[in-house]
Amino acid sequence: MPGSIQSLERAAAILRLLAGGERRLGLSDVASSLGLAKGTAHGLLRTLRSEGLVEQDAASGKYQLGAELLRLGTGYLDGHQLRARALRWTDDLARATGEAAYVAVPHRDGVLVVHHVPRPGEPPRTGAMLPLHGSALGRVLCAYDPVTRAEPAGGPGFEAELAATRARGFAVDLEPAGGGTASVAALVRDGRRMPVGAVGVTGAAERMCDAGGVLAGVVAAVQDCARGISGDLGAGRA
Amino acid sequence: MPGSIQSLERAAAILRLLAGGERRLGLSDVASSLGLAKGTAHGLLRTLRSEGLVEQDAASGKYQLGAELLRLGTGYLDGHQLRARALRWTDDLARATGEAAYVAVPHRDGVLVVHHVPRPGEPPRTGAMLPLHGSALGRVLCAYDPVTRAEPAGGPGFEAELAATRARGFAVDLEPAGGGTASVAALVRDGRRMPVGAVGVTGAAERMCDAGGVLAGVVAAVQDCARGISGDLGAGRA
Repeated sequence: MPGSIQSLERAAAILRLLAGGERRLGLSDVASSLGLAKGTAHGLLRTLRSEGLVEQDAASGKYQLGAELLRLGTGYLDGHQLRARALRWTDDLARATGEAAYVAVPHRDGVLVVHHVPRPGEPPRTGAMLPLHGSALGRVLCAYDPVTRAEPAGGPGFEAELAATRARGFAVDLEPAGGGTASVAALVRDGRRMPVGAVGVTGAAERMCDAGGVLAGVVAAVQDCARGISGDLGAGRA
Repeated sequence: MPGSIQSLERAAAILRLLAGGERRLGLSDVASSLGLAKGTAHGLLRTLRSEGLVEQDAASGKYQLGAELLRLGTGYLDGHQLRARALRWTDDLARATGEAAYVAVPHRDGVLVVHHVPRPGEPPRTGAMLPLHGSALGRVLCAYDPVTRAEPAGGPGFEAELAATRARGFAVDLEPAGGGTASVAALVRDGRRMPVGAVGVTGAAERMCDAGGVLAGVVAAVQDCARGISGDLGAGRA
């Protein structure tokens, strides 16, 4: 049934288009962006709208993503096994380090945050995409997961950074911008010992680092957390 | 193009099925639940999977919702005009009352939380569905929005409750269970003065109520917040 599949692929392309950049697009914009006839785009948008996946602004007639996507996205989180196992461990990690804890999985050309324990007053970041090469969570997944590493290549020295990550067993990211932010992340494995996600903390470098780099206690807490979740997923304690 | 529309409707039905109840279903379960031939269901699932909207567990072969839904749901939130306008006002509301603040929109047979300012230590509830009749946010939308009210009827006395809500300009929900929780919600209108959502607070009844009901200061803070957001949306101050 190639026809059906094509309409579904096109519908997904419309949702991706509305998720990026402009967010509110008219029928002509959607049709021309995706190289579709206007009638084809209209049929898809009308059905997406009747399913709640797209909404149409009454005043402008423009289309935007629909509320059903938030409901389904929450359903994804509620059914997420790694996230469910990680809740308790990441609460402990946030408490032990005093920093924000994150759980992420590889998705598209980056990593998707599936759980975030913010520091008090921080906005929640669950659902955010982080860069694969510019985040500790992404780097540790690249270091261990061949599928993730096959994404667009990093800059020069990236393979060496991945080798160093594997050698020490955790990834570090230091962002000098904005006063300095430090991140540490470690790998989570499932019951078959396959890489399934990453866990880490992010916070001010002045709290998390000394002259020798990230404090050993912070690194140990992140690694304990990753081992704990992996163990709960059946990977066994390393 | 009725064929295309049908495949898209069926794909949406698969996503709804995976969002409720079991969450992990095999091909046969999906096909029989939706009355589809196995080959048809397989074609849809394969395309949904290639788009990241569905994931397949490697060990069991069962299907579950995919990470792309979380990314798209976050895109919905990021582009949400009511939510964007509400951020500042609900921070003020949470600070003024010391309670958790919520913004919700009508969706399917309930209301969908599009923004939540939790009390310290509370888990985030953005993306949660609340009942239309069993929540203050739902009741205030039922009271003012004929489309929302057209959902499945409330119990006896519900119309009287809606009339009372309109008369006083806010909805109240008191839950005796679990030590007693109180909620107050008011309506948000857009630039055409149409109901577009609701804003409210929820907290322990012992803090929010006295013998005369919900404290006047809490009600006034919720109504100020609703007027503030409506004003920012162009509805003008009432």
